Amino acid sequence: MKTVSETRCFEGVQGVYSHASDACGCDMTFALYQPPQARTHPVPVLWYLSGLTCTHENAMTKAGAQAWAAQHGVAVVFPDTSPRGEGVADDAAYDLGQGAGFYVDATEAPWAPHFRMWSYITDELPRILFRNFDLEEGCQAITGHSMGGHGALTIAAHFPERFRSVSAFAPIANPTGSDWGRKQLSAYLGADEARWAAHDASLLIRERGLPMPLLVDQGTADDFIDLLKPEALAASIAERRQPAVLRMQDGYDHSYFFVASFMADHMAFHAEALFA
Amino acid sequence: MKTVSETRCFEGVQGVYSHASDACGCDMTFALYQPPQARTHPVPVLWYLSGLTCTHENAMTKAGAQAWAAQHGVAVVFPDTSPRGEGVADDAAYDLGQGAGFYVDATEAPWAPHFRMWSYITDELPRILFRNFDLEEGCQAITGHSMGGHGALTIAAHFPERFRSVSAFAPIANPTGSDWGRKQLSAYLGADEARWAAHDASLLIRERGLPMPLLVDQGTADDFIDLLKPEALAASIAERRQPAVLRMQDGYDHSYFFVASFMADHMAFHAEALFA
Repeated sequence: MKTVSETRCFEGVQGVYSHASDACGCDMTFALYQPPQARTHPVPVLWYLSGLTCTHENAMTKAGAQAWAAQHGVAVVFPDTSPRGEGVADDAAYDLGQGAGFYVDATEAPWAPHFRMWSYITDELPRILFRNFDLEEGCQAITGHSMGGHGALTIAAHFPERFRSVSAFAPIANPTGSDWGRKQLSAYLGADEARWAAHDASLLIRERGLPMPLLVDQGTADDFIDLLKPEALAASIAERRQPAVLRMQDGYDHSYFFVASFMADHMAFHAEALFA
Repeated sequence: MKTVSETRCFEGVQGVYSHASDACGCDMTFALYQPPQARTHPVPVLWYLSGLTCTHENAMTKAGAQAWAAQHGVAVVFPDTSPRGEGVADDAAYDLGQGAGFYVDATEAPWAPHFRMWSYITDELPRILFRNFDLEEGCQAITGHSMGGHGALTIAAHFPERFRSVSAFAPIANPTGSDWGRKQLSAYLGADEARWAAHDASLLIRERGLPMPLLVDQGTADDFIDLLKPEALAASIAERRQPAVLRMQDGYDHSYFFVASFMADHMAFHAEALFA
């Protein structure tokens, strides 16, 4: 692992690190914010998964997470959203290929060799993180925005023992029923829709629930709301009798201004679970 | 004036607007954050002047100001840092020409026709702002980062009746004695150094003081600290017996991570003066 940069931020350290990734077969970059409390003892970790077109950098600079992470004493890891580089397949569209890994392990050509973000986020990066930093492995939570909200919800559903809480900002909530999902899942996983269901938060919650506190914020003025399908998530939560707080936030759009506006709430929500 | 975008943010509105500028002879863009309190009554205004290479956008997305502006009920205006466009002179260097207006009215070729940021910030943009938005013209404060800190301090010194408080993040504090200053002041104002003194915060404070509360933060790990010359500012403040708080912040660099870390303090500082 190589340190790209370390910058003081809210009395903690905002770092950017890179490493050769076995899962993705390329170099990967991630950001980690360590709050000031990390100087004296291991701290809990919140995963923040980003959306389409993002790298590790967007949320690190625009989501305003560090102010609240420092207040609560929680580290925040910001992974990249896909493999990258010259030998890595790509597509001209913004919503497929590099910057659009969708948090799955691709099985189809040309994506299969590198697009293994599921393994990267759930297996390889945790090992790198807990080997290199003094963080509380037994004390993790997960959140994300848009495609990253999809990632957070689906990963939490598959690793209920790992995460104490899960939240999402405007998640892609029902990708098997949306153009933000059907296109990518068929490209990465093939035409058999049975294999897509494991990566659809609304289907997973209806089927198995999420045995942890759940918070979701969705802006009512989000230009992408028809693609995000919060109604599918809301129905699943209600049908499953899933304990959850789903907030339709009046007038907010899909931008980081929306994410930043509710970051304090999400951080307090996770801190309550992490320090319970 | 044209509305480029308006986005809900911390229950207020983050807007971006453009207009034809007489002062600069080109179209100019600025951002304005209106806190939720602005829906019911005129609110005070904090000017945030940005640094080299920035547009209206950098601080708007990365400084984290809106969280605290919403809390205190203060609007924040983020102007651009220079004229821009095809007919506008420029230089290959990042620190001269477009993105580097230095908050002066240029008198020299090729800059004189457009580079009139002093007039733009002190005269034209205020008129546009108070004509188009319901803000408290009698209740203004000013801050800025780096070149924008230089702008904030020098403008406050020349308009003491206009601003109730002034602050700066890592300001270019003594441009007449620095390569961040001598190059630009000679290009924009000519070789006669007597004309530069009106745009040097350390000289102005020593000469006339700043009859308002003053707060300055400077990171000790700032890579540009030798160009910023906080020691000149500190000396002027001490010699003048200028009431001020000058904080050397241990380990912080020149980035927005530094600015964001202390934005809450600056906003509270200005709010105290604005609501006194």
